[in-house]
Amino acid sequence: MGKWGKRDDMIVHQESPYNAEPAPAALDRHPLTPLGTFFGRNHGMIQHIDPDAWRLRVDGLVDRPRTFSLAELQRRYEHRGVVATLQCAGNRRAELTAVRPIPGQVLWGPAAISTARWVGAPLADVLADAGLLPQAEHIAFVEAHTQPKAGEWPVFGGSIPVGKATAGEVLLAWEMNGAPLPAVHGGPVRVIVPGYIGARSVKWLQRVTAQEQPSDNHFQAADYRMLPPDADRAEAEEGHGLSLGVAALNAAILTPTDGQALLAGPVRVSGYAVAGEGRGVARVDVSVDRGRHWRQAEFGETDDPWAWRLWQISLELPPGPAQIVARAWDTSATVQPERAENVWNPLGYMNTAWSRVRVTCA
Amino acid sequence: MGKWGKRDDMIVHQESPYNAEPAPAALDRHPLTPLGTFFGRNHGMIQHIDPDAWRLRVDGLVDRPRTFSLAELQRRYEHRGVVATLQCAGNRRAELTAVRPIPGQVLWGPAAISTARWVGAPLADVLADAGLLPQAEHIAFVEAHTQPKAGEWPVFGGSIPVGKATAGEVLLAWEMNGAPLPAVHGGPVRVIVPGYIGARSVKWLQRVTAQEQPSDNHFQAADYRMLPPDADRAEAEEGHGLSLGVAALNAAILTPTDGQALLAGPVRVSGYAVAGEGRGVARVDVSVDRGRHWRQAEFGETDDPWAWRLWQISLELPPGPAQIVARAWDTSATVQPERAENVWNPLGYMNTAWSRVRVTCA
Repeated sequence: MGKWGKRDDMIVHQESPYNAEPAPAALDRHPLTPLGTFFGRNHGMIQHIDPDAWRLRVDGLVDRPRTFSLAELQRRYEHRGVVATLQCAGNRRAELTAVRPIPGQVLWGPAAISTARWVGAPLADVLADAGLLPQAEHIAFVEAHTQPKAGEWPVFGGSIPVGKATAGEVLLAWEMNGAPLPAVHGGPVRVIVPGYIGARSVKWLQRVTAQEQPSDNHFQAADYRMLPPDADRAEAEEGHGLSLGVAALNAAILTPTDGQALLAGPVRVSGYAVAGEGRGVARVDVSVDRGRHWRQAEFGETDDPWAWRLWQISLELPPGPAQIVARAWDTSATVQPERAENVWNPLGYMNTAWSRVRVTCA
Repeated sequence: MGKWGKRDDMIVHQESPYNAEPAPAALDRHPLTPLGTFFGRNHGMIQHIDPDAWRLRVDGLVDRPRTFSLAELQRRYEHRGVVATLQCAGNRRAELTAVRPIPGQVLWGPAAISTARWVGAPLADVLADAGLLPQAEHIAFVEAHTQPKAGEWPVFGGSIPVGKATAGEVLLAWEMNGAPLPAVHGGPVRVIVPGYIGARSVKWLQRVTAQEQPSDNHFQAADYRMLPPDADRAEAEEGHGLSLGVAALNAAILTPTDGQALLAGPVRVSGYAVAGEGRGVARVDVSVDRGRHWRQAEFGETDDPWAWRLWQISLELPPGPAQIVARAWDTSATVQPERAENVWNPLGYMNTAWSRVRVTCA
């Protein structure tokens, strides 16, 4: 067992802040990602908070601001379970660097994505209980900063529109796959915002604020922005570009792995596909002739509305090199774009291009 | 003035059923499409129904089924106004035929889309008033069939999920751009389902039924389905393929027109972009070098959540042939796919590929 309870073969991009993803094949065949395999994405130190000492402040545009202990939160609200996939907005960034370099960013492979069953209090109920005022347009989250981190790393936060915050699927979660939420994933309590980029599921939650404007926290106001391809990276600091929120349709091949040597014959190809808010994954196509002909993959049995769909297909591969390509369609008949060139952006977010792995068969 | 009060230069694909779209340039500069320009898409005869004789039946999984006259509908419910774009799922089908033929379907250009301000009763209120039962999963609509059309054309209908039907934006509409809803657009009352394919906005509405299953009407059960590219068209009849509902991100160039001769120098390029349910149009990129470099278009002033965004940009074109390409991004950072080959399907639905026009400058 490696650091933070993770498997030994995690691909650790940075030790501090801890940024690590599993090998793609480790996600295969697991509708729920084991805790030791779940990717970790951090902008600061992992915080260790005594659950008994933890407090949550709910304030801003509400009639009755209040402070909760964990026991109060658990006693007062329904314990709702939601199976939800979290995906870093930088998932698959490494593939984009084949187009042009993306300096200063974590170069994630296709496994900065994982799925768990989360249990917690519905944020909608907490806000209703606090008397949410009609002028509230956004619900902002800020992490705790119990450690002497100020000056080293900025405090992490972000917000979501009030319509999303009051939908039933957003949780203040204290449980992950049946275990108390571990510190490395934001325990004792984090936000889970299904269908949104992972950055909005703020860890080590300390404060929930109803407000008129989106969060002015650095990680929303100046980061997690998709700039036009020819923009200067500094433009993000000035609030230019598309502020990411709702996740886009995406899919990737998990097995075989890029560069893998295989025996010719039937090869099992597997992967995941994930649709954004309000959409489902409708179809996954797989091609071995660069998209001239496609076959449809089979979905795994589980189909939770806020989770990825795992898929697989058996392909007959002849001896020699081969490129396997996969693309997903969502229930609106949206299909992923073909080429990484078409989605490249200066900060390397939301690589939704067709997934490709190159293999050699003997 | 041409047939059905439409402009003389409508492109009439069929006289009966009446299927016509304006020249693309006629949509430019009009956030609301004039009634005489609005596209018409029909699977049967235009029906002429006396508003005083019209009745609407609301039934199925409700506590209190009832029948309304138009006066009762207007007296009992809020008159809600929604600016909404309707788009035929076959919009831009003609461009797909450059990949492979699509026999037996109307070959729409890029103008099978229009926008109006609709006024009507919120369907949510009508259903709540009827006592919608919790087991209702879908709300089905059927058109009137006042004319001896049975045997000639099947009765048109379709359904939407109950979650959409009980959202506030779905209307039973009797007014279009300030005028009583004309017969050619489904008067006296039609459904308006913003964010969905036009086929779900059933005209000449006669019946609203709450039910457990989606509509078994031909136009939902066996038509308006996106099949895999290599499927047999007959598979749609068997209920295969993706049943279209939520509209996908799309955009097209309105001016200049494909094949137009222009003077070299600054050229105004204009068009529309439309995002599906729960998404907004975030950016429109325009290129004159087949996508190697892009410039961002400017949006028109109006920004209604259920309507297209009109856009324009001034480009400097040198003498000679040029290809202008446009693509849209939505607020989830989804971008349109590049090539028509990537979206071609046997029934020619949902062409969301980049829009291209070829011009010659002198």
